[in-house]
Amino acid sequence: MSTEYTVNSYLLDRLKELGLRHIFGVPGDYAFPMLDCIERNQDISWVGTCNELNASYAADGYARIQGIGAFVVTAGVGELSASCGVGGAYAEGVPVIAIAGHPTTQALKNGLFTHHSLHGDFSVFPRIYKELTVAQALLTPENACQEIDRVLEACWSEKLPVYIQLPNDVGSLPAQPPTQKLALSEPVSDQTQLAALLESLLPLLSAASRPAMLIDSPVGSFHLTELVESFANKSGIPFAATFTGKSAFLDETHPQYLGTYQAGIEGSAVNQLIEAADLLLRLGIQHDETNNGCAAFDLQSPHVVDLQINSAAIAGSHYPNVTLRDVLMQLSEQVPHREFAFSSQQARTTSVPFEPQHDTPIKQDRLWQRFGHFLQSDDVLVVELGTCTVGATGVSMPARTRIVTQHTWEAIGYTLPAVLGAHLADRSRRHLLLVGDGAFQLTAQELSTILRQGLAPIIFLLHNNNYQVENAMRVDGKQMHYNEVQSWNYHQLATVFAQKQKALGLLVTTEEELETALTQAAQAQTEGRCVLIEVMLAPKDIPSQLAQTLNLLGHEQK
Amino acid sequence: MSTEYTVNSYLLDRLKELGLRHIFGVPGDYAFPMLDCIERNQDISWVGTCNELNASYAADGYARIQGIGAFVVTAGVGELSASCGVGGAYAEGVPVIAIAGHPTTQALKNGLFTHHSLHGDFSVFPRIYKELTVAQALLTPENACQEIDRVLEACWSEKLPVYIQLPNDVGSLPAQPPTQKLALSEPVSDQTQLAALLESLLPLLSAASRPAMLIDSPVGSFHLTELVESFANKSGIPFAATFTGKSAFLDETHPQYLGTYQAGIEGSAVNQLIEAADLLLRLGIQHDETNNGCAAFDLQSPHVVDLQINSAAIAGSHYPNVTLRDVLMQLSEQVPHREFAFSSQQARTTSVPFEPQHDTPIKQDRLWQRFGHFLQSDDVLVVELGTCTVGATGVSMPARTRIVTQHTWEAIGYTLPAVLGAHLADRSRRHLLLVGDGAFQLTAQELSTILRQGLAPIIFLLHNNNYQVENAMRVDGKQMHYNEVQSWNYHQLATVFAQKQKALGLLVTTEEELETALTQAAQAQTEGRCVLIEVMLAPKDIPSQLAQTLNLLGHEQK
Repeated sequence: MSTEYTVNSYLLDRLKELGLRHIFGVPGDYAFPMLDCIERNQDISWVGTCNELNASYAADGYARIQGIGAFVVTAGVGELSASCGVGGAYAEGVPVIAIAGHPTTQALKNGLFTHHSLHGDFSVFPRIYKELTVAQALLTPENACQEIDRVLEACWSEKLPVYIQLPNDVGSLPAQPPTQKLALSEPVSDQTQLAALLESLLPLLSAASRPAMLIDSPVGSFHLTELVESFANKSGIPFAATFTGKSAFLDETHPQYLGTYQAGIEGSAVNQLIEAADLLLRLGIQHDETNNGCAAFDLQSPHVVDLQINSAAIAGSHYPNVTLRDVLMQLSEQVPHREFAFSSQQARTTSVPFEPQHDTPIKQDRLWQRFGHFLQSDDVLVVELGTCTVGATGVSMPARTRIVTQHTWEAIGYTLPAVLGAHLADRSRRHLLLVGDGAFQLTAQELSTILRQGLAPIIFLLHNNNYQVENAMRVDGKQMHYNEVQSWNYHQLATVFAQKQKALGLLVTTEEELETALTQAAQAQTEGRCVLIEVMLAPKDIPSQLAQTLNLLGHEQK
Repeated sequence: MSTEYTVNSYLLDRLKELGLRHIFGVPGDYAFPMLDCIERNQDISWVGTCNELNASYAADGYARIQGIGAFVVTAGVGELSASCGVGGAYAEGVPVIAIAGHPTTQALKNGLFTHHSLHGDFSVFPRIYKELTVAQALLTPENACQEIDRVLEACWSEKLPVYIQLPNDVGSLPAQPPTQKLALSEPVSDQTQLAALLESLLPLLSAASRPAMLIDSPVGSFHLTELVESFANKSGIPFAATFTGKSAFLDETHPQYLGTYQAGIEGSAVNQLIEAADLLLRLGIQHDETNNGCAAFDLQSPHVVDLQINSAAIAGSHYPNVTLRDVLMQLSEQVPHREFAFSSQQARTTSVPFEPQHDTPIKQDRLWQRFGHFLQSDDVLVVELGTCTVGATGVSMPARTRIVTQHTWEAIGYTLPAVLGAHLADRSRRHLLLVGDGAFQLTAQELSTILRQGLAPIIFLLHNNNYQVENAMRVDGKQMHYNEVQSWNYHQLATVFAQKQKALGLLVTTEEELETALTQAAQAQTEGRCVLIEVMLAPKDIPSQLAQTLNLLGHEQK
């Protein structure tokens, strides 16, 4: 237990190089040497979560803001418990490093029947993680530092999770500090392909009278948002986000920003503008049912240009080695500025003035209207999928707000640990969490860690005693017993989890009480206190946009 | 949504045939047809848990009492979240059926990029479950009912978990009710091998003057406990349980019962008796580090007979097709009764009289002494691994008490959902839970479901603000920050989770308060109220037996 430089030290140095400042997890004996090394480290703080699933969600939330996230758990029990969070990072393109402390190399080799094992076989767990990560390292005394570098580089360049099996003896071996930086260089375009693409694309852009851009989440995870906005500024081309593209953190107050495109929503002004474009640049679009009902655009059309992070396609011609970064930089130089006829004002959600009604129970649509006025520039909004995302999608976002949501993996319960991670990554911004009661119950204990870390998010907990979105999905309109959720006194949790007055719990049933609560919350937040506002809603009350949204989500696909 | 007989109905009928009366899970859209079918079912009740990991633990606890357990979750997110519980069932030999509702057959085939998917690939999840279960069924319209039968028979006969991938269209297909019972017949011995074994064994038994039996958990899971006790009665041979053998539910008040054998505990009277045996019958012994430090007995010795569930070995001779059931039945007939010199009184833990001290903070050793007097015949004791198992191991168990603990997998947090499952399987017995604060936090929300189901366990929550066993494991004696646990007002949770007065929360710091709390708890339990007794303990206070136990657990293995 000396202060010797070890493989564990090396791993922490590399994580620090990637920008990591916090590491999540639950202690377990196979991980002790690594945990000891973290406890001695000056630059990376240990954040113990209540369980391992929550550690993986927190690391994901952290990575979405910080650009990298990591957790440490023990073999078997810890890594399986965390697997759903890693699956989410894999589904959504989030760079998370899963580190599992394992028995000694010798014990692994001998298949020693020790605790946390499946009859002595620890090879099961790396095989499982092979299904959920883009690269895996099984560290040995011979390969440890090289393998650490290999998987960290893969994590960074692919923006996908990786796995490290860390036998506890290997972690404690002496090592040399890195002498070179990690190879984090961006992929480079094939210049011939890039030229060919531009040769096709530039005339199309010149000819277009109604061009538009549609932007998805990889633009955010590959840090291209500024470049996209810069190109939009220079060219004058308007742009919209897909539903999942909310994760790209676009500036929704940008004068050319059209709003959120969701295929299938009839009468949507954004959709009409995007679908009427005579040239649509699709930036990093994922073939996700929530974005496009699996097939909304004809990719063979000469009016649709598909620009992925490292490849492109126009009308059936493919450019497999052209990066979006290079394309955007070239276009920014070569496309002249124009003013386009259709303005974002046509599409933008306009904020509805809100006047609280006397003695009136709060309803969903009214809650979202009011919420729109509570939002501030630079807020980070963590939104549970379901009712909350539907409600939040209708809200006009102030400048530089960021939205964290698990749009494809859709693991309910993700957001409470995710706000822990996101807020630790950026203490300077105000964080708001929107979550339903059913979802909250999955990971409720992580409120404890939020308080323990002295974070002060404002949590809106929608209490309606059911998995509302699941009942809403039913074509027969039945309210099923299995969708019912036990009623808790949620706002009291604040004082169960924290000994000191770190938190404020509020119960709200009427519009006037909501008004009062919002005032108290804003004040408490500035004093560094976490606020949990429990909003009582009628079980069958749903945002009016929900039914239509659900239909398009393909839940009825055959 | 008719009442037509479907594949889902068939599956439920088969589960009922196996003795299942409750099924755990969390709703999700891919599982809706199955959940609808359960909601209509008269014989199997849906028990919605707060999250999927807890559903898998509850199904495990249920199976340990009921002989079978099952849960239903949705694809991807649900099944990964539940994977740690299934791993535990696989490690410990518990028959749990994991049912995952999946997208339609066509969507699976087309790799449709839908929610809860890894880029449209749902085949990942059955591959993962292949690592954690003894049999897997990927249901199709053609094979559904046959495959259901195959995996349920495997689950029953192997006492290991199985996996069913249930595409939601397949579950809704019309089916015929079963016309024959499931093939649940016990394996039959090869008669020649059985005769040969007895020919070797009977003379050894006759010649032995100090024979003994050592019993492990499979004796319980294969329902052989009564047969073992019956043979003990007839033969007069004394017997002990291994640490993991506590799960076999032996009658610890039996006059021939010696106690718990744990290799390496020096000065243990039980160990001395077992190790001095001139013929040791090992019944279902697992090669688990917690039982025998991986190697305590010389299996080549003619004094050690290894009797597994479906095989046997004496002094290097193997009998691969001899069942323990047949051996016990033959021995019961052929071995004459004898009285043996060494009596269980030599080894049995004797109950220490307890008199509460005035104004004295409660300490671990005193808590366990007092706890011994609180136990009653027929109690079910659910014990979290670590401090609690060590403490409970020293307590003399009244007649017919049953102990549920996860002795090998050792997933902290297992016990709270497990007591939900175990108690639903047997509402007639009193259930007690022993759990530490760190472990409790992993799965704390399941107290809500315990209350929702109207169960009335008495929960002893040891509050000492750290993962105590993890600090105790350290050879350097350091108290690490990462082993600290946030302090909650645990006893207040009872009124957060239940709207009505279903629960009583009590805080105890002194011996006198403990006395009062036990009286209140016993009364409240008879009134059908759940009781949570939060026992405040000093952080460094550990049961005196703990240090010695930890050494033998092999945590220092190289």
